[in-house]
Amino acid sequence: MTKEETLKMGLDLANKSTIVMCSTIDDKGFPNTRAMMKLGNQELKEIWSITNVSSRKVPHIKMNQKACMYFVDFIEWTGLMLVGTIEILQDLESKKRFWRDELDKYFRLGINDPDCAIIHFTANQGQYYHSFNIVNFEL
Amino acid sequence: MTKEETLKMGLDLANKSTIVMCSTIDDKGFPNTRAMMKLGNQELKEIWSITNVSSRKVPHIKMNQKACMYFVDFIEWTGLMLVGTIEILQDLESKKRFWRDELDKYFRLGINDPDCAIIHFTANQGQYYHSFNIVNFEL
Repeated sequence: MTKEETLKMGLDLANKSTIVMCSTIDDKGFPNTRAMMKLGNQELKEIWSITNVSSRKVPHIKMNQKACMYFVDFIEWTGLMLVGTIEILQDLESKKRFWRDELDKYFRLGINDPDCAIIHFTANQGQYYHSFNIVNFEL
Repeated sequence: MTKEETLKMGLDLANKSTIVMCSTIDDKGFPNTRAMMKLGNQELKEIWSITNVSSRKVPHIKMNQKACMYFVDFIEWTGLMLVGTIEILQDLESKKRFWRDELDKYFRLGINDPDCAIIHFTANQGQYYHSFNIVNFEL
């Protein structure tokens, strides 16, 4: 695979995925991974998700911004690992940009719920896996 | 959910899963996550997988044993995060314990392939997610 083909296949996987595995570092230095809703992505460079402010991942992210976002297709045995930094956005503008009606079931007070925050991830590098091939790339 | 019910549901998820999301820490302190084959588990306490020795995760693990294993069921919206330590086993006894014929396609020299190593993870704590409920537990 050329780098261009890899990035194209990786982007196809990211674009079609509604769930992303988000890994952060906890207060004792251990990786913590959990599935999260993908609200949007800008190519492979930026990914947005949503969290409860009361979640324990929020203080972890404030302490350590190093993170990984991983997309996977179990049927195709294809995986895209993106490594970079993550931040918590609590401004109304960011929430408005990604809000959708189905989020009401997670946040009782809707878009103004103080427990609602946007997660913004920016990738610096990645790795794409498909059919025994691994391709590493910078972003 | 009581702790007993949580552990039972988490164990059901781990037992039925053939794939696990394995997160390690790379040489720059970033979490790296990838799907891996689950070869076996001992309750929720221990998980075994397999890797190429030539994989870049091997030197990362030798440098930093902190790791996370995550099982997920996208249909049921259920996730099990296990946090603990990880090690690389290259002795023949460990390979024999988990070897299965389908691994031949990954390792040309079979069980004696010097590029084959077993990954052994031991959990210290966990978090189980199901239907808006999050339960944390020690192991």
